[in-house]
Amino acid sequence: MKFPSAVKIVEVGPRDGLQNEKQPISVEAKVALINTLADAGLRNIEAGSFVNPKWVPQMAGSEEVFQNIARKAGVSYAALTPNMMGFERAMAAGATEVAIFAAASEAFSQKNINCSIAESIERFAPILQAAQAQNLPVRGYVSCIAGCPYEGEISASKVAEVSDILFQAGCYEVSLGDTIGTGTPAIIERVVDLTSKKIPMSQLALHAHDTYGQAIANIYRALQMGMSVFDSSIAGLGGCPYAKGASGNVATEDVVYLLSGLGIQHGIDLPKLLHAAQGICTVLGRETHSKAGRALAGTLCVDI
Amino acid sequence: MKFPSAVKIVEVGPRDGLQNEKQPISVEAKVALINTLADAGLRNIEAGSFVNPKWVPQMAGSEEVFQNIARKAGVSYAALTPNMMGFERAMAAGATEVAIFAAASEAFSQKNINCSIAESIERFAPILQAAQAQNLPVRGYVSCIAGCPYEGEISASKVAEVSDILFQAGCYEVSLGDTIGTGTPAIIERVVDLTSKKIPMSQLALHAHDTYGQAIANIYRALQMGMSVFDSSIAGLGGCPYAKGASGNVATEDVVYLLSGLGIQHGIDLPKLLHAAQGICTVLGRETHSKAGRALAGTLCVDI
Repeated sequence: MKFPSAVKIVEVGPRDGLQNEKQPISVEAKVALINTLADAGLRNIEAGSFVNPKWVPQMAGSEEVFQNIARKAGVSYAALTPNMMGFERAMAAGATEVAIFAAASEAFSQKNINCSIAESIERFAPILQAAQAQNLPVRGYVSCIAGCPYEGEISASKVAEVSDILFQAGCYEVSLGDTIGTGTPAIIERVVDLTSKKIPMSQLALHAHDTYGQAIANIYRALQMGMSVFDSSIAGLGGCPYAKGASGNVATEDVVYLLSGLGIQHGIDLPKLLHAAQGICTVLGRETHSKAGRALAGTLCVDI
Repeated sequence: MKFPSAVKIVEVGPRDGLQNEKQPISVEAKVALINTLADAGLRNIEAGSFVNPKWVPQMAGSEEVFQNIARKAGVSYAALTPNMMGFERAMAAGATEVAIFAAASEAFSQKNINCSIAESIERFAPILQAAQAQNLPVRGYVSCIAGCPYEGEISASKVAEVSDILFQAGCYEVSLGDTIGTGTPAIIERVVDLTSKKIPMSQLALHAHDTYGQAIANIYRALQMGMSVFDSSIAGLGGCPYAKGASGNVATEDVVYLLSGLGIQHGIDLPKLLHAAQGICTVLGRETHSKAGRALAGTLCVDI
């Protein structure tokens, strides 16, 4: 075991999280969320996405969000950009990082974006070129790294192959997404092992979903292997679009609680993080999905 | 890492779980729950407790429960027995195993049962003697192994010391309870490491609570260390009495999902387990607390 001494958390709540919430959320509420997250010490925040609002209504208004956030020095405000039009909108709005994506499952790629994996990566070539010309970091997401809702189990070598294509194409970091949360530490171990043979561990991230309650164990296994970048979502924002009523993204609070317990630096102020969670949960009118968050807000809080 | 090839799950839902639920539950519902659990392959079921119903109203009727369950060969039906009167009631009702308990925290012992740890263990001497005379296995629970709601952090050496006293006194198995769920894998590692120097690993169990979302990671860490007995509660029955609205016992379904993913034998039929969970959740009129359970009951189930 070779735990990293410090970890980078990529907060995906304002984009990946909110995009899967049902209620409409105002630009003001999104801006407030992003500002409180930066206040809590998060240095990497996925703030929105520039997709067609016809397909993802929750992400309408990303321009206004980016224009109104109180930019904090040292914080990267990223945007998901599915095509050149989205990329240009993200640039105009002042995104400091963009993200592109591919699936490790052919069936998922076809159902989700109506093209093969290879075609989907080709389509991102102009974005990678334009970003490079502007010295803008591009992050790559690989989805379905453990399982696919249409294909079932996905082979770790396919994940490594797709990740490597994104990395070779110029992504500075590749985030391995367990989109439907079916992974257990054994699968994560195989995927991280194979992928880290192609991409340096420091440039790999795990994007864990807690749909089957395995996310924290999966992150723990990845930490043991030396991984040091993890995606998570404040208050566990976002459900699982593939299983009604099930959980989606792992909650940032639960990840921070784990890291603190392991003595790994994360730079996040937990009370401020809980404050940020409370703010967005009030807007959404529901309880946090974070177990640590719920326990710490309970009648009796013990030191962590 | 030296994962065990097979694991024993001790199902504590009908006792530890239901005892912390608010609604009154009929004897019939308890009996149905226990029978469906045995049907699902569970071989160790904590079926009730013989305490004063004035203190724990949910456990009234344990006699009737034991008398009405459809006993299955090879299944142990255990009862918690706080004193000799409870022990005699458990014997009369036909419990095949009894459990006694001590805290690893002086403050918790005082607040919970109004005596010191040493006094609490002395009080169990007659039970241990009587059980030995009847060749009846006695299980020992140690609570607050990671944290205490009154004292905060608990030292691993104190846990090892109290566990050893119970073991030396005749308990065939000692279950280490993270009563308030504050433990992370680092604490679990220290506790298991120290305790297994006094008690053979095969006679140690982990009783994890998921209050802070760490239970599955803690179980995973214990599995890596060779532990092979785990307590869990169907549907995550039971809340945390120390933090309002927070989770308590780790859900059996989530543990089974983890074990299947790691290729570790558990002998449990997952669809039948989900059936048992559905039954008790219908009685309680609420959703399961198991994430795997919720995902598998969702609109799209993928192979596990």
